Amino acid sequence: MISSESNGQIKEVIKLQKQARYRRKQQTFVVEGIKMVQEAAYHGKLQKMYISEGKYQEISQILSALVNTYEYEIVSDQVLKQISETVTPQGILGTVTLPTYDMENILQQEKHRFLLLDDLRDPGNLGTVMRTAEGAGMSGVLLSKGSVDLFNPKVVRSTMGAIFRVPYCYVEDLAEVARQIRNMGYEVYGTAMEGSVAYDEPDYTAGAAVVIGNEANGISETVFQSVTKRIRIPMEGQLESLNAAISAAIVMYEMQRQERRNLTK
Amino acid sequence: MISSESNGQIKEVIKLQKQARYRRKQQTFVVEGIKMVQEAAYHGKLQKMYISEGKYQEISQILSALVNTYEYEIVSDQVLKQISETVTPQGILGTVTLPTYDMENILQQEKHRFLLLDDLRDPGNLGTVMRTAEGAGMSGVLLSKGSVDLFNPKVVRSTMGAIFRVPYCYVEDLAEVARQIRNMGYEVYGTAMEGSVAYDEPDYTAGAAVVIGNEANGISETVFQSVTKRIRIPMEGQLESLNAAISAAIVMYEMQRQERRNLTK
Repeated sequence: MISSESNGQIKEVIKLQKQARYRRKQQTFVVEGIKMVQEAAYHGKLQKMYISEGKYQEISQILSALVNTYEYEIVSDQVLKQISETVTPQGILGTVTLPTYDMENILQQEKHRFLLLDDLRDPGNLGTVMRTAEGAGMSGVLLSKGSVDLFNPKVVRSTMGAIFRVPYCYVEDLAEVARQIRNMGYEVYGTAMEGSVAYDEPDYTAGAAVVIGNEANGISETVFQSVTKRIRIPMEGQLESLNAAISAAIVMYEMQRQERRNLTK
Repeated sequence: MISSESNGQIKEVIKLQKQARYRRKQQTFVVEGIKMVQEAAYHGKLQKMYISEGKYQEISQILSALVNTYEYEIVSDQVLKQISETVTPQGILGTVTLPTYDMENILQQEKHRFLLLDDLRDPGNLGTVMRTAEGAGMSGVLLSKGSVDLFNPKVVRSTMGAIFRVPYCYVEDLAEVARQIRNMGYEVYGTAMEGSVAYDEPDYTAGAAVVIGNEANGISETVFQSVTKRIRIPMEGQLESLNAAISAAIVMYEMQRQERRNLTK
């Protein structure tokens, strides 16, 4: 049993929890809780588990198949608390290989419904966006380099497993990707007030991309130049804007709604 | 200038920040930042401002009208940090009288689009829900007693001012309120998997209520018995559920979409 925080493995897990750069270098991130560990194993990405002494009996019963298959360490409750990023740790963490996708593959998928995130910064927003993107059936999410790290513990938690299931790619130049999508023959929608139509007016059923901008500053100028159609989400009252994850959800679900309606026609 | 945290007023503000019960007793809550203080004043609810020494000059210029009209105290930067609930305080807080609404008034408004929240617990979710409810033009939000306090600092921050503009009421018995709305002749929609139709199938244009349940457990049994129609938000992939604020947003914006489409027909 590991009961010291200065243990090499423990220091490694803490570094993976805290540093986005280290996660990228090691191509590894950390998930917490029984469900997320199961999900990681299901997708063939689980490396190793860390289980707290106090919950070992209970967890090893629930996860008997995993305990028999994967490497694990029992750690003191105190150490587990140290390596956990949640307020009430569930007693299990796993180190997990980053899922990776090729951008060209994402663009060539059968369905063409892309979400482009231009410097989305809030971890909770990104997690919720990924979760909603799965539900809405988006074919992939493309993120500018300046967006928050998808494997930040807070993001991971709020994706509810979608992190393993929604193809994503961080791209050097999001404006260039937008142009590429446009050149494939799809509209690239960006939210804007001036010269825009309500988000439910365009026909998205042949495929489309939608750009969601930064929480404070919206879509950057260079990316906005690659937008082909401007849409807005009508707001009543005196509100200046909606939350970025909410805006993304409303547009993605309108795309899904049109597709469903089209199929049942 | 107040430079001691043991000052009576400072202790009072901290208590208002920390304790929902105390906020209710005093019918007072705290807002942070220039925009929220302006918003409170605009709605005639601002009591007093607390401005940090280091930002006093800058803030008193921006808020010169308020500084000339309302009571304020200059506090040391250290004290402002202590009474702030944000990581990077903006240098100004205000104590504000709770906006209050009468449930019967909410139910009798011209438009009848009600959101019922059944034990919503996450502060970020509630703030986002209020913000979206304003944008979608809901006539009021009715919350079960077990829902998180709307005047919790985290909720206040994420409402972006909607807290002053969306009529709300905490109710003793949400199931009873649902029955009351039903007896007024409106459908009460609840999200459920079994026996449900897609959320975009019903016609909401004559008015309707939608119930959003607790993040972990969904709608409680007693409230569910007062639901008249079951709707679901179709999900692709392997997702078990959407985030509660996202679900609320998708249904509220479908209501607004139908109303807009109806008006332009």
